[in-house]
Amino acid sequence: MKAEIVAIGTELLLGQVLDTNSQYLAEQLSLRGINVYFHTVVGDNRLRLKQTLMRAAERSDLVFCTGGIGPTQDDITKEVIAEICGKPLIYHEPTLEKLERHFRNSNRKLVESNKRMAWIVEGSTPFYNEVGQAVGLAVHYKQSHFVVMPGPPRELKGMFAGKIASWLKTVLKSEEIIYSKLLKFAGIGESSLENQLLDLIDQQTDPTLAPYANTGEVAIRLSTKAENEEQAMRKIMPVENEIRKRVGEYLYADEDLSLEQLVVQMMKDKGVTLSAAESCTGGLFSQYITAVEGSSEVFAGGIICYSNKVKNQVLHIPEELLAGVDAPGAVSAETAERLAESVMNLTGTDYGVSFTGVAGPGQMEGKPVGLIYIGLAQRERQTVSFELFLSSGRETIRLNAVKRALYELWRRLKENG
Amino acid sequence: MKAEIVAIGTELLLGQVLDTNSQYLAEQLSLRGINVYFHTVVGDNRLRLKQTLMRAAERSDLVFCTGGIGPTQDDITKEVIAEICGKPLIYHEPTLEKLERHFRNSNRKLVESNKRMAWIVEGSTPFYNEVGQAVGLAVHYKQSHFVVMPGPPRELKGMFAGKIASWLKTVLKSEEIIYSKLLKFAGIGESSLENQLLDLIDQQTDPTLAPYANTGEVAIRLSTKAENEEQAMRKIMPVENEIRKRVGEYLYADEDLSLEQLVVQMMKDKGVTLSAAESCTGGLFSQYITAVEGSSEVFAGGIICYSNKVKNQVLHIPEELLAGVDAPGAVSAETAERLAESVMNLTGTDYGVSFTGVAGPGQMEGKPVGLIYIGLAQRERQTVSFELFLSSGRETIRLNAVKRALYELWRRLKENG
Repeated sequence: MKAEIVAIGTELLLGQVLDTNSQYLAEQLSLRGINVYFHTVVGDNRLRLKQTLMRAAERSDLVFCTGGIGPTQDDITKEVIAEICGKPLIYHEPTLEKLERHFRNSNRKLVESNKRMAWIVEGSTPFYNEVGQAVGLAVHYKQSHFVVMPGPPRELKGMFAGKIASWLKTVLKSEEIIYSKLLKFAGIGESSLENQLLDLIDQQTDPTLAPYANTGEVAIRLSTKAENEEQAMRKIMPVENEIRKRVGEYLYADEDLSLEQLVVQMMKDKGVTLSAAESCTGGLFSQYITAVEGSSEVFAGGIICYSNKVKNQVLHIPEELLAGVDAPGAVSAETAERLAESVMNLTGTDYGVSFTGVAGPGQMEGKPVGLIYIGLAQRERQTVSFELFLSSGRETIRLNAVKRALYELWRRLKENG
Repeated sequence: MKAEIVAIGTELLLGQVLDTNSQYLAEQLSLRGINVYFHTVVGDNRLRLKQTLMRAAERSDLVFCTGGIGPTQDDITKEVIAEICGKPLIYHEPTLEKLERHFRNSNRKLVESNKRMAWIVEGSTPFYNEVGQAVGLAVHYKQSHFVVMPGPPRELKGMFAGKIASWLKTVLKSEEIIYSKLLKFAGIGESSLENQLLDLIDQQTDPTLAPYANTGEVAIRLSTKAENEEQAMRKIMPVENEIRKRVGEYLYADEDLSLEQLVVQMMKDKGVTLSAAESCTGGLFSQYITAVEGSSEVFAGGIICYSNKVKNQVLHIPEELLAGVDAPGAVSAETAERLAESVMNLTGTDYGVSFTGVAGPGQMEGKPVGLIYIGLAQRERQTVSFELFLSSGRETIRLNAVKRALYELWRRLKENG
């Protein structure tokens, strides 16, 4: 099964908007064993859009189109596809009713152009839009299918997950269905993980192993073709066990879960609380934690102690520790540990983490860019710290420090049982 | 001048990596009046890459290729282009020397495959890579040019800004050179700004007006073709003045500067300092400020007062204010003002800002999602607060609150002269 993705919209073409839909779709299709050979971005231009879509249909079995199905005259995707297929556009009644209801409720008149959002190509499979207004569709054309989806990422994802994924199953022959399992790792770099699994990545063909990496997190996806999930898991299990034997200590989830989601969940389950003192990370750790819905049960808050004055006056780090000829300085294991304890005590939480270091640009206290100390305090436990040497830009240094702290927190929570 | 962009790499095609290069290039090219008609993503496959590049060269004057010029066997961009042009690959001596130096210094052997990074097509214009290793190039083919650039975004941007932008000037005919000026606004929504400039956007043809929007910030780009910058600015000025007359109070910069950069810069210039107390924003404001290089001169730090306990114990907000039958509650103008004052006093800064509100999901204190109060304290000034009703998702609510606070800070700094 060969597929390609066509993202439609002049705002994408001109770089005014970043196209994230193509990446999302490519990942979803790859997961299902569908080979994606091209992504194309094309503007709201009838001729170029038609050429692009016809070429795509000639060389691919599935052509996924995003965008260009809104209410304006620039939204021409469905018109062009109807023209290619030689079929008329008709209204999708449930969508038309929804539009009428929507406009009636907001006391606006449903003008003719708005009704474009209810258009479908005659004979196509409509995909009702649960998130937005415009209906999507799939239509057969020669040896290929056009699949038409909305441009706004939330609408696209809603439609893909809710409607198109199951439609795809009816199109794919059963032996082509791919099952996969995601293993997520932290505290280990991509190349180090790959090195320890190199023979499996190279030689293991069923299931296959594919490594993925994002800053600070690494994942392995195990995929296999099977008739049903049970059969797939039977094939995946021995390889998964081998991976767990080798690098199990870094494996934190066997599903698509971020480390901060897991940490918040574990703390909720244990009924414990957390606070943070952040110097060089400037609030990034707190950002990651508070971006998790429901984190307020766990996270009391934190102190962003960017200046030594705040370290001293708010967090009571002694001046002798921060400055002076032989002082360890603000960027030191001692300061990190004191910060973690201090924020824990100040906020009355069960755990405290801290960050102090040199995120750059430029040295501090004669210490190099990339040197970071993380402190971890817990009631009735010895406070510890971790020394990190991180390379590459300010943002990456900060992010990697945050991910490392989440990793250490996860290890601690795990060992506490 | 017609251009298209071809991003090369299987990791992009499969959605493992998000392609941000195409957006960057599209924006840079549009700015220079070059029409971009297609973006394509293609994998490391010789046949499909060759087909894609040849089709691109047939229909476009400039074909910008990113990626596939590293040291591995998968990096085939230069080989394929050399084959299309019917020219051999030769070494770019300065790059080869740099590679030899680099490997000697790190005590590694320069193997044959690494030398691929020094390849250029015979007769091409080489672009030395200041950020990474692999050299870029531009080569004439029939009526078109291939421009070959590295895939890592930092290397790409470095090469484009440092080398390719000026090469482009030699290729573009002089009458096609576009000059433009960016006007950046805050504190006003995209649609509201557009409404006030609708006649200009629709009817003004030289210079043209193009609105851009990012969450919380809006920009207008004025563009005109001219022989030189002075002539361009003479054409732009009357329209710019008209815009300033209508919406000048929201205009914060006439260059590509973020609001947080400007606020940090203004505070530096005035020698004043800032701190923040963040409840619902959970550190996002501090993140924005500390992401600006050199912000440590200005930003002392902050308190993330997610829990009422931290609001009370660390920031001394009275319990009567936070809880009780008739209490205003944590989400109130009173609490916002007290938080801003308290963090200013605690950290000894000149200004204090605060955030308290309901970012969702779910209500708090019977108050709706999206209700946010921002407090702004300044020494020897009356503390004030702003009530916001923001809609759409947790992340957007938080971001818009942060941008609004930056806007209010900017206004205050401006009026203080």
